[in-house]
Amino acid sequence: MDAAVRCFAEQTQVSMTDIAREAGVGRVTLYGHFPSRERLIEAALERALDDARCVLAAADPDSGPADEALRRLLRSSWSVLDRYRRLFDSAQRELGSTKMREQHDPAMAMVAALIDRGRREGTFRTDLPVDWLVTTVYTLLHAAAEDVNNGRQSAGDVTGLLEATLLQALAPPV
Amino acid sequence: MDAAVRCFAEQTQVSMTDIAREAGVGRVTLYGHFPSRERLIEAALERALDDARCVLAAADPDSGPADEALRRLLRSSWSVLDRYRRLFDSAQRELGSTKMREQHDPAMAMVAALIDRGRREGTFRTDLPVDWLVTTVYTLLHAAAEDVNNGRQSAGDVTGLLEATLLQALAPPV
Repeated sequence: MDAAVRCFAEQTQVSMTDIAREAGVGRVTLYGHFPSRERLIEAALERALDDARCVLAAADPDSGPADEALRRLLRSSWSVLDRYRRLFDSAQRELGSTKMREQHDPAMAMVAALIDRGRREGTFRTDLPVDWLVTTVYTLLHAAAEDVNNGRQSAGDVTGLLEATLLQALAPPV
Repeated sequence: MDAAVRCFAEQTQVSMTDIAREAGVGRVTLYGHFPSRERLIEAALERALDDARCVLAAADPDSGPADEALRRLLRSSWSVLDRYRRLFDSAQRELGSTKMREQHDPAMAMVAALIDRGRREGTFRTDLPVDWLVTTVYTLLHAAAEDVNNGRQSAGDVTGLLEATLLQALAPPV
Protein backbone atom coordinates (compact mmCIF):
# COMPACT_ATOMS: atom_id res chain seq x y z
CA MET A 1 0.00 0.00 0.00
CA ASP A 2 2.82 2.41 0.92
CA ALA A 3 4.64 1.48 -2.28
CA ALA A 4 1.51 2.11 -4.34
CA VAL A 5 0.93 5.51 -2.75
CA ARG A 6 4.59 6.45 -3.38
CA CYS A 7 4.41 5.34 -7.03
CA PHE A 8 1.18 7.23 -7.71
CA ALA A 9 2.53 10.36 -6.01
CA GLU A 10 5.53 10.48 -8.33
CA GLN A 11 4.29 9.49 -11.78
CA THR A 12 1.06 9.27 -13.73
CA GLN A 13 1.43 6.02 -15.69
CA VAL A 14 1.89 3.46 -12.92
CA SER A 15 1.71 -0.27 -13.68
CA MET A 16 1.23 -3.20 -11.31
CA THR A 17 4.82 -4.17 -12.18
CA ASP A 18 6.13 -0.77 -11.00
CA ILE A 19 4.30 -1.14 -7.71
CA ALA A 20 5.44 -4.73 -7.14
CA ARG A 21 9.04 -3.62 -7.78
CA GLU A 22 8.72 -0.64 -5.41
CA ALA A 23 7.25 -2.94 -2.72
CA GLY A 24 9.96 -5.55 -3.28
CA VAL A 25 7.45 -8.33 -3.98
CA GLY A 26 6.58 -10.33 -7.06
CA ARG A 27 3.62 -9.48 -9.29
CA VAL A 28 1.88 -12.70 -8.22
CA THR A 29 2.07 -11.63 -4.56
CA LEU A 30 0.73 -8.18 -5.44
CA TYR A 31 -2.16 -9.67 -7.42
CA GLY A 32 -2.83 -11.94 -4.42
CA HIS A 33 -3.67 -8.82 -2.40
CA PHE A 34 -5.23 -6.71 -5.15
CA PRO A 35 -6.87 -8.68 -7.98
CA SER A 36 -6.79 -5.70 -10.37
CA ARG A 37 -5.21 -2.27 -10.89
CA GLU A 38 -8.65 -0.78 -10.26
CA ARG A 39 -8.91 -2.42 -6.81
CA LEU A 40 -5.41 -1.24 -5.92
CA ILE A 41 -6.15 2.34 -6.95
CA GLU A 42 -9.39 2.18 -4.99
CA ALA A 43 -7.46 1.08 -1.88
CA ALA A 44 -4.83 3.82 -2.38
CA LEU A 45 -7.58 6.41 -2.79
CA GLU A 46 -9.27 5.15 0.39
CA ARG A 47 -6.04 5.67 2.27
CA ALA A 48 -5.66 9.20 0.85
CA LEU A 49 -9.24 10.00 1.85
CA ASP A 50 -8.67 8.65 5.39
CA ASP A 51 -5.77 11.08 5.59
CA ALA A 52 -8.01 13.84 4.28
CA ARG A 53 -10.68 13.17 6.90
CA CYS A 54 -8.11 13.34 9.73
CA VAL A 55 -6.59 16.56 8.43
CA LEU A 56 -9.98 18.16 7.88
CA ALA A 57 -11.18 17.21 11.35
CA ALA A 58 -7.96 18.69 12.79
CA ALA A 59 -8.82 22.00 11.09
CA ASP A 60 -11.69 22.19 13.61
CA PRO A 61 -14.47 23.22 11.21
CA ASP A 62 -17.07 23.53 14.01
CA SER A 63 -15.29 26.43 15.74
CA GLY A 64 -15.34 30.16 15.12
CA PRO A 65 -16.89 32.13 12.29
CA ALA A 66 -17.91 29.91 9.34
CA ASP A 67 -15.92 31.86 6.75
CA GLU A 68 -12.74 31.56 8.83
CA ALA A 69 -13.44 27.84 9.33
CA LEU A 70 -13.86 27.45 5.55
CA ARG A 71 -10.50 29.12 4.97
CA ARG A 72 -8.89 26.65 7.41
CA LEU A 73 -10.65 23.74 5.72
CA LEU A 74 -9.50 24.85 2.26
CA ARG A 75 -5.88 25.20 3.37
CA SER A 76 -5.98 21.77 5.04
CA SER A 77 -7.71 20.15 2.08
CA TRP A 78 -5.12 21.59 -0.26
CA SER A 79 -2.23 20.29 1.85
CA VAL A 80 -3.58 16.73 1.48
CA LEU A 81 -4.67 17.11 -2.12
CA ASP A 82 -1.32 18.53 -3.18
CA ARG A 83 0.32 15.37 -1.83
CA TYR A 84 -2.07 13.04 -3.65
CA ARG A 85 -2.91 15.04 -6.80
CA ARG A 86 -1.36 12.54 -9.24
CA LEU A 87 -3.06 9.63 -7.52
CA PHE A 88 -6.32 11.54 -7.84
CA ASP A 89 -5.75 11.90 -11.58
CA SER A 90 -5.16 8.13 -12.00
CA ALA A 91 -8.15 7.33 -9.80
CA GLN A 92 -10.40 9.67 -11.80
CA ARG A 93 -9.47 7.81 -14.99
CA GLU A 94 -9.68 4.34 -13.48
CA LEU A 95 -12.84 4.75 -11.42
CA GLY A 96 -14.75 7.48 -13.31
CA SER A 97 -16.12 10.67 -11.83
CA THR A 98 -19.30 9.25 -10.26
CA LYS A 99 -17.48 6.66 -8.13
CA MET A 100 -14.78 9.22 -7.36
CA ARG A 101 -17.32 11.66 -6.00
CA GLU A 102 -19.03 8.91 -3.96
CA GLN A 103 -15.70 7.98 -2.39
CA HIS A 104 -15.31 11.63 -1.35
CA ASP A 105 -18.75 11.81 0.29
CA PRO A 106 -17.56 11.13 3.88
CA ALA A 107 -14.89 13.85 3.62
CA MET A 108 -17.29 16.23 1.87
CA ALA A 109 -19.87 15.68 4.64
CA MET A 110 -17.65 17.91 6.81
CA VAL A 111 -17.80 20.63 4.16
CA ALA A 112 -21.57 20.21 3.92
CA ALA A 113 -21.95 20.57 7.69
CA LEU A 114 -19.84 23.72 7.69
CA ILE A 115 -21.80 25.26 4.80
CA ASP A 116 -25.00 24.41 6.63
CA ARG A 117 -23.79 26.14 9.79
CA GLY A 118 -22.63 29.17 7.76
CA ARG A 119 -26.08 29.43 6.18
CA ARG A 120 -27.77 29.42 9.61
CA GLU A 121 -25.33 32.10 10.79
CA GLY A 122 -25.93 34.29 7.72
CA THR A 123 -22.35 33.90 6.43
CA PHE A 124 -23.15 31.76 3.37
CA ARG A 125 -25.85 32.05 0.71
CA THR A 126 -29.17 30.26 1.10
CA ASP A 127 -30.49 30.82 -2.45
CA LEU A 128 -28.80 27.70 -3.86
CA PRO A 129 -29.00 24.07 -2.61
CA VAL A 130 -26.30 22.96 -0.14
CA ASP A 131 -25.33 20.00 -2.33
CA TRP A 132 -24.56 22.32 -5.26
CA LEU A 133 -22.38 24.49 -3.00
CA VAL A 134 -20.56 21.31 -1.88
CA THR A 135 -20.07 20.37 -5.55
CA THR A 136 -18.63 23.85 -6.11
CA VAL A 137 -16.07 23.40 -3.32
CA TYR A 138 -15.20 19.80 -4.30
CA THR A 139 -14.84 20.71 -7.96
CA LEU A 140 -12.70 23.80 -7.60
CA LEU A 141 -10.37 22.05 -5.14
CA HIS A 142 -9.77 19.28 -7.66
CA ALA A 143 -9.60 21.71 -10.59
CA ALA A 144 -6.79 23.47 -8.75
CA ALA A 145 -4.97 20.12 -8.42
CA GLU A 146 -5.42 19.52 -12.16
CA ASP A 147 -4.16 23.00 -12.98
CA VAL A 148 -1.02 22.29 -10.94
CA ASN A 149 -0.61 18.83 -12.54
CA ASN A 150 -0.78 20.31 -16.03
CA GLY A 151 1.34 23.35 -15.26
CA ARG A 152 -1.38 26.02 -15.51
CA GLN A 153 -0.94 27.14 -11.88
CA SER A 154 1.84 26.75 -9.35
CA ALA A 155 1.10 24.83 -6.14
CA GLY A 156 2.08 27.78 -3.93
CA ASP A 157 -0.58 30.12 -5.37
CA VAL A 158 -3.46 27.72 -5.16
CA THR A 159 -4.80 28.34 -1.65
CA GLY A 160 -5.07 32.07 -2.37
CA LEU A 161 -7.02 31.41 -5.57
CA LEU A 162 -9.32 28.93 -3.87
CA GLU A 163 -10.06 31.16 -0.87
CA ALA A 164 -10.74 34.24 -3.02
CA THR A 165 -13.01 32.34 -5.44
CA LEU A 166 -14.94 30.14 -3.02
CA LEU A 167 -15.51 32.63 -0.19
CA GLN A 168 -17.05 34.99 -2.74
CA ALA A 169 -19.03 32.28 -4.58
CA LEU A 170 -20.56 31.13 -1.26
CA ALA A 171 -21.34 34.56 0.20
CA PRO A 172 -24.98 35.74 0.35
CA PRO A 173 -25.83 37.65 -2.86
CA VAL A 174 -25.79 41.43 -2.35
CA MET B 1 -19.02 9.30 -36.52
CA ASP B 2 -22.78 9.94 -36.18
CA ALA B 3 -23.22 6.42 -34.83
CA ALA B 4 -20.46 6.96 -32.29
CA VAL B 5 -21.94 10.25 -31.10
CA ARG B 6 -25.38 8.60 -30.77
CA CYS B 7 -23.96 5.65 -28.79
CA PHE B 8 -21.98 7.86 -26.42
CA ALA B 9 -24.98 10.14 -25.88
CA GLU B 10 -27.13 7.22 -24.71
CA GLN B 11 -24.91 4.99 -22.60
CA THR B 12 -21.65 5.16 -20.66
CA GLN B 13 -19.99 1.82 -21.44
CA VAL B 14 -19.69 1.93 -25.24
CA SER B 15 -17.59 -0.65 -27.09
CA MET B 16 -16.23 -0.54 -30.65
CA THR B 17 -18.65 -3.42 -31.37
CA ASP B 18 -21.66 -1.32 -30.25
CA ILE B 19 -20.58 1.52 -32.53
CA ALA B 20 -19.92 -0.73 -35.53
CA ARG B 21 -23.40 -2.27 -35.07
CA GLU B 22 -25.06 1.17 -34.77
CA ALA B 23 -23.22 2.32 -37.93
CA GLY B 24 -24.15 -0.87 -39.79
CA VAL B 25 -20.52 -1.71 -40.59
CA GLY B 26 -18.17 -4.47 -39.50
CA ARG B 27 -15.62 -4.01 -36.72
CA VAL B 28 -12.80 -4.33 -39.27
CA THR B 29 -14.21 -1.39 -41.26
CA LEU B 30 -14.58 0.67 -38.08
CA TYR B 31 -10.98 -0.10 -37.04
CA GLY B 32 -9.93 0.90 -40.58
CA HIS B 33 -11.14 4.43 -39.82
CA PHE B 34 -10.27 4.60 -36.12
CA PRO B 35 -7.36 2.38 -35.03
CA SER B 36 -8.40 2.51 -31.35
CA ARG B 37 -11.29 3.38 -29.05
CA GLU B 38 -9.22 6.33 -27.84
CA ARG B 39 -8.91 7.76 -31.37
CA LEU B 40 -12.63 7.34 -31.95
CA ILE B 41 -13.53 9.09 -28.69
CA GLU B 42 -11.11 11.85 -29.58
CA ALA B 43 -12.83 12.31 -32.95
CA ALA B 44 -16.29 12.29 -31.34
CA LEU B 45 -15.13 14.85 -28.78
CA GLU B 46 -13.72 17.02 -31.57
CA ARG B 47 -17.10 17.00 -33.27
CA ALA B 48 -18.86 17.92 -30.01
CA LEU B 49 -16.40 20.77 -29.49
CA ASP B 50 -16.93 22.03 -33.05
CA ASP B 51 -20.64 22.17 -32.21
CA ALA B 52 -19.80 23.99 -28.98
CA ARG B 53 -17.73 26.61 -30.80
CA CYS B 54 -20.57 27.32 -33.26
CA VAL B 55 -23.17 27.59 -30.52
CA LEU B 56 -20.94 29.80 -28.37
CA ALA B 57 -20.16 32.13 -31.30
CA ALA B 58 -23.91 32.34 -32.03
CA ALA B 59 -24.44 33.57 -28.44
CA ASP B 60 -22.58 36.71 -29.57
CA PRO B 61 -20.24 37.08 -26.59
CA ASP B 62 -18.75 40.35 -27.91
CA SER B 63 -22.00 42.31 -27.64
CA GLY B 64 -23.66 44.09 -24.73
CA PRO B 65 -22.73 44.13 -21.05
CA ALA B 66 -20.19 41.41 -20.17
CA ASP B 67 -22.32 39.88 -17.40
CA GLU B 68 -25.29 39.52 -19.76
CA ALA B 69 -22.98 38.03 -22.41
CA LEU B 70 -21.68 35.53 -19.83
CA ARG B 71 -25.25 34.49 -18.99
CA ARG B 72 -25.90 33.88 -22.71
CA LEU B 73 -22.65 31.95 -23.02
CA LEU B 74 -23.48 29.76 -20.01
CA ARG B 75 -26.96 28.95 -21.32
CA SER B 76 -25.53 28.09 -24.76
CA SER B 77 -22.69 26.05 -23.30
CA TRP B 78 -25.11 24.09 -21.18
CA SER B 79 -27.38 23.34 -24.16
CA VAL B 80 -24.42 21.69 -25.94
CA LEU B 81 -22.94 20.07 -22.84
CA ASP B 82 -26.28 18.57 -21.81
CA ARG B 83 -26.40 16.84 -25.21
CA TYR B 84 -22.87 15.45 -24.90
CA ARG B 85 -22.48 14.97 -21.14
CA ARG B 86 -22.11 11.17 -21.31
CA LEU B 87 -19.59 11.42 -24.14
CA PHE B 88 -17.69 13.91 -21.99
CA ASP B 89 -17.60 11.39 -19.14
CA SER B 90 -16.19 8.65 -21.41
CA ALA B 91 -13.69 11.08 -22.95
CA GLN B 92 -12.53 12.21 -19.51
CA ARG B 93 -11.76 8.60 -18.59
CA GLU B 94 -10.20 7.68 -21.91
CA LEU B 95 -8.11 10.80 -22.49
CA GLY B 96 -7.45 12.06 -18.96
CA SER B 97 -8.13 15.55 -17.67
CA THR B 98 -5.05 17.29 -19.11
CA LYS B 99 -5.75 16.30 -22.72
CA MET B 100 -9.45 16.97 -22.14
CA ARG B 101 -8.74 20.51 -21.04
CA GLU B 102 -6.37 21.08 -23.97
CA GLN B 103 -9.07 19.95 -26.41
CA HIS B 104 -11.38 22.56 -24.85
CA ASP B 105 -8.87 25.40 -25.24
CA PRO B 106 -10.28 26.78 -28.54
CA ALA B 107 -13.83 26.90 -27.11
CA MET B 108 -12.58 28.30 -23.79
CA ALA B 109 -10.68 31.04 -25.66
CA MET B 110 -14.07 32.68 -26.23
CA VAL B 111 -14.75 32.59 -22.49
CA ALA B 112 -11.27 34.02 -21.82
CA ALA B 113 -11.89 36.89 -24.27
CA LEU B 114 -15.21 37.69 -22.62
CA ILE B 115 -13.72 37.63 -19.12
CA ASP B 116 -10.95 39.90 -20.36
CA ARG B 117 -13.45 42.37 -21.78
CA GLY B 118 -15.49 42.25 -18.56
CA ARG B 119 -12.37 43.03 -16.54
CA ARG B 120 -11.62 46.10 -18.71
CA GLU B 121 -15.23 47.24 -18.31
CA GLY B 122 -15.17 46.78 -14.51
CA THR B 123 -17.77 43.98 -14.55
CA PHE B 124 -15.44 41.13 -13.55
CA ARG B 125 -12.76 40.86 -10.88
CA THR B 126 -9.14 41.69 -11.67
CA ASP B 127 -7.58 40.35 -8.44
CA LEU B 128 -7.22 36.77 -9.80
CA PRO B 129 -5.53 35.60 -13.04
CA VAL B 130 -7.79 35.25 -16.11
CA ASP B 131 -6.73 31.63 -16.65
CA TRP B 132 -7.93 30.69 -13.15
CA LEU B 133 -11.30 32.36 -13.82
CA VAL B 134 -11.51 30.38 -17.08
CA THR B 135 -10.74 27.19 -15.11
CA THR B 136 -13.54 28.14 -12.71
CA VAL B 137 -16.06 28.47 -15.56
CA TYR B 138 -14.86 25.31 -17.36
CA THR B 139 -14.87 23.28 -14.17
CA LEU B 140 -18.27 24.27 -12.85
CA LEU B 141 -19.90 23.73 -16.25
CA HIS B 142 -18.55 20.19 -16.36
CA ALA B 143 -19.29 19.60 -12.67
CA ALA B 144 -22.90 20.44 -13.42
CA ALA B 145 -22.88 17.86 -16.23
CA GLU B 146 -21.45 15.28 -13.81
CA ASP B 147 -24.06 16.13 -11.18
CA VAL B 148 -26.80 15.54 -13.77
CA ASN B 149 -25.14 12.29 -14.93
CA ASN B 150 -25.01 10.93 -11.39
CA GLY B 151 -28.45 12.19 -10.38
CA ARG B 152 -27.36 14.89 -7.91
CA GLN B 153 -29.02 17.69 -9.90
CA SER B 154 -31.71 17.76 -12.57
CA ALA B 155 -30.80 19.11 -16.02
CA GLY B 156 -33.50 21.79 -15.90
CA ASP B 157 -32.10 23.50 -12.78
CA VAL B 158 -28.52 23.66 -13.92
CA THR B 159 -28.37 26.96 -15.82
CA GLY B 160 -29.82 28.79 -12.80
CA LEU B 161 -27.20 27.25 -10.50
CA LEU B 162 -24.36 28.04 -12.91
CA GLU B 163 -25.43 31.65 -13.48
CA ALA B 164 -25.90 32.37 -9.77
CA THR B 165 -22.58 30.79 -8.79
CA LEU B 166 -20.36 32.03 -11.60
CA LEU B 167 -21.65 35.60 -11.92
CA GLN B 168 -20.97 36.05 -8.22
CA ALA B 169 -17.59 34.25 -8.25
CA LEU B 170 -16.40 36.48 -11.11
CA ALA B 171 -17.70 39.81 -9.78
CA PRO B 172 -15.21 42.35 -8.40
CA PRO B 173 -14.77 41.77 -4.62
CA VAL B 174 -16.74 44.28 -2.53
